[in-house]
Amino acid sequence: MARLRLDLAYDGAGFHGWATQPGLRTVQGEIETAIATVLRLDDPAPLTCAGRTDTGVHARGQVVHVDLDDADPDVLARRLRRILPPDISLLRIAEAPTGFDARFSALERRYVYRLADRPGADPLARGYVVEWPRQLDVEAMNAAAAPLLGEHDFAAFCRKRAGATTVRILRELSATRSANGLVETTVRADAFCHSMVRALMGALVAVGDGRHEPSWAGEVLATRARDSRVKVMPAHGLVLEEVVYPDDDQLAERALESRRVRG
Amino acid sequence: MARLRLDLAYDGAGFHGWATQPGLRTVQGEIETAIATVLRLDDPAPLTCAGRTDTGVHARGQVVHVDLDDADPDVLARRLRRILPPDISLLRIAEAPTGFDARFSALERRYVYRLADRPGADPLARGYVVEWPRQLDVEAMNAAAAPLLGEHDFAAFCRKRAGATTVRILRELSATRSANGLVETTVRADAFCHSMVRALMGALVAVGDGRHEPSWAGEVLATRARDSRVKVMPAHGLVLEEVVYPDDDQLAERALESRRVRG
Repeated sequence: MARLRLDLAYDGAGFHGWATQPGLRTVQGEIETAIATVLRLDDPAPLTCAGRTDTGVHARGQVVHVDLDDADPDVLARRLRRILPPDISLLRIAEAPTGFDARFSALERRYVYRLADRPGADPLARGYVVEWPRQLDVEAMNAAAAPLLGEHDFAAFCRKRAGATTVRILRELSATRSANGLVETTVRADAFCHSMVRALMGALVAVGDGRHEPSWAGEVLATRARDSRVKVMPAHGLVLEEVVYPDDDQLAERALESRRVRG
Repeated sequence: MARLRLDLAYDGAGFHGWATQPGLRTVQGEIETAIATVLRLDDPAPLTCAGRTDTGVHARGQVVHVDLDDADPDVLARRLRRILPPDISLLRIAEAPTGFDARFSALERRYVYRLADRPGADPLARGYVVEWPRQLDVEAMNAAAAPLLGEHDFAAFCRKRAGATTVRILRELSATRSANGLVETTVRADAFCHSMVRALMGALVAVGDGRHEPSWAGEVLATRARDSRVKVMPAHGLVLEEVVYPDDDQLAERALESRRVRG
């Protein structure tokens, strides 16, 4: 068996999220089926991904690993590209370095959330940009973000799972007015719990919209309990842009550490 | 009656082109219906546009005029934005300066055609980027474009219409490798005849793909007859990005001149 690393992009609109679910079209399901087809496997080889994107969330830099019996990466890439659907793009396949685990070796996930808050949004981008009916105050959004940075219990912004920690290290949460007039918010953390990015965005937008003072986001964080005033923003504005890994000689150690913290 | 100028963007995928056709969804039809609805007109007020985009062609900078009985541009904009479909975006409405004609006052139309010629295209952009299975030689494309610049009879790249000239002034036809790896070709001319931009792209792609020498495009032009070796490229890679008008005091004169040349 050899472990392969796959880098993927997809348009989340047509999928019920990443994870395989019986009877539903999912990214994992489509790719596992495609690999099983080209390699004539009896059972699909299971994929492990870095970011389990929700229904409607997109990816430009998803990373996945899969263990296969002697599959040539270049041949597999060519054959997969012939049969993958148009809303999934295979960026590359390579043999994974020793110790690589797409999920647990990752140091950091980077997401970008895009909002169009002025009339006249680009209709060609409407699949991945959320329209907002009022102009947002980007400075206020960044003031709201500041106290959330660093290591905290993000339970206020997470859907709780039994036995799983909601402590995360938030490395960046910063909004900018992009050249094309959008409000683009970059979010980087070691990892995210379920719906966390979109709940953080809900808090920032509530502040940018003038419904709350910037200090409110930090107050919500401190409650460490899911707050119904924090709306989870729509999925289609969110793109998993990048997953960052350490140097090859750190991959195994990092995977051990992540398993210890989050397992 | 006052003349209004409307600036529009649209995703061409859902339309049978610009021009109203009975029983088909068109951009003109949708907007004329929307204006008639908000102003309670018995008959739709006819729109005149700068670039009659074909089925599937997009616009980020379409310009239109319409003559209406005392309609306040700001009120009209607000009400139209409430009812226009999500694939049409109203960028702005303003009272048109004296002498303005969206079609005939225009000095220049600028289109951009986008191609992804490497594996791993962005699936979020697949609605407006055409995938090409082999890498294109951008330098060869630009060498092919050079002899087409200037005033020529572009009959070789046009679908002929009885009584209409096919002489145009091509001001730019230049391909670049963009930061995100696409081949983006900008095409500027005083005006275009039917399917001309996509036929020019067909010639450039045939050269970039190595099927013809760069000199071939100029040879095709010189035949002044539609050449079946020039393929019309798919519509969804093409965006009408901008229409350029002269200063206000030149609008009427420019319209007269255009009517004389192309009428």
